[in-house]
Amino acid sequence: MGDEEQVLAANAEFYRAFAARDTAAMYALWAVRTPVACIHPGWRALRGREAVLASWRDILAGAGAPAISCADAAAHVLGDAALVICTERLPGVELIATNLFVREDGAWKMVHHHASGMARDVAEPDDDEPESGSGLLH
Amino acid sequence: MGDEEQVLAANAEFYRAFAARDTAAMYALWAVRTPVACIHPGWRALRGREAVLASWRDILAGAGAPAISCADAAAHVLGDAALVICTERLPGVELIATNLFVREDGAWKMVHHHASGMARDVAEPDDDEPESGSGLLH
Repeated sequence: MGDEEQVLAANAEFYRAFAARDTAAMYALWAVRTPVACIHPGWRALRGREAVLASWRDILAGAGAPAISCADAAAHVLGDAALVICTERLPGVELIATNLFVREDGAWKMVHHHASGMARDVAEPDDDEPESGSGLLH
Repeated sequence: MGDEEQVLAANAEFYRAFAARDTAAMYALWAVRTPVACIHPGWRALRGREAVLASWRDILAGAGAPAISCADAAAHVLGDAALVICTERLPGVELIATNLFVREDGAWKMVHHHASGMARDVAEPDDDEPESGSGLLH
């Protein structure tokens, strides 16, 4: 399996663990030696393994843990780091996510997750309307 | 200047170009050989240099281009890639941003920008209240 496929597999495992509320698998996904961070939708940035894993423990244990799946994942390998951008599908809403991985002991581990909402009235890049950004913050 | 300082300088230059509506400097900031992407607040992901630079051209030319500044920037160098997480301050609102850079010909160039809003009722990590994530999407 090439690097890009391995990164996409790690990204898929993140969403499998999330949807299955598999806390042990979620913990194992995150990097150990590299500083990690996480920006949940609408949250401030969490920095450091303790804060990030605690947030996942709470989310996966909570009644509100969503039925989530990942779509349109694209990976770009940047040496020993790799970027994945994907859509997160939840009941009634789609989010957009930036996921960043690093290679630790030959395995791709997550170092950063940033998910956020998409405004419904934003034109898609392939729409006819130009994207002026008017009405958005930038 | 060490790598981390260089990355923070590139990040600062991004916000300087943004605030000054300096389109030429904004174009020069983005990577040329590495695929780039950008997620403006509430937008879907833009992929590829043409789409990303076109979005910046429109934003910087628009009447709605905000007075923006960057705060609390922290950089993590991951080999030839580097992650910056920072707060974006705009009039009346703060956003959170993930900025990703790569080294191209010895200079740190932006390959990805993801900015999104923060809910006002989300506890900060150092608050007393536990962060349950209840009411948020995850």
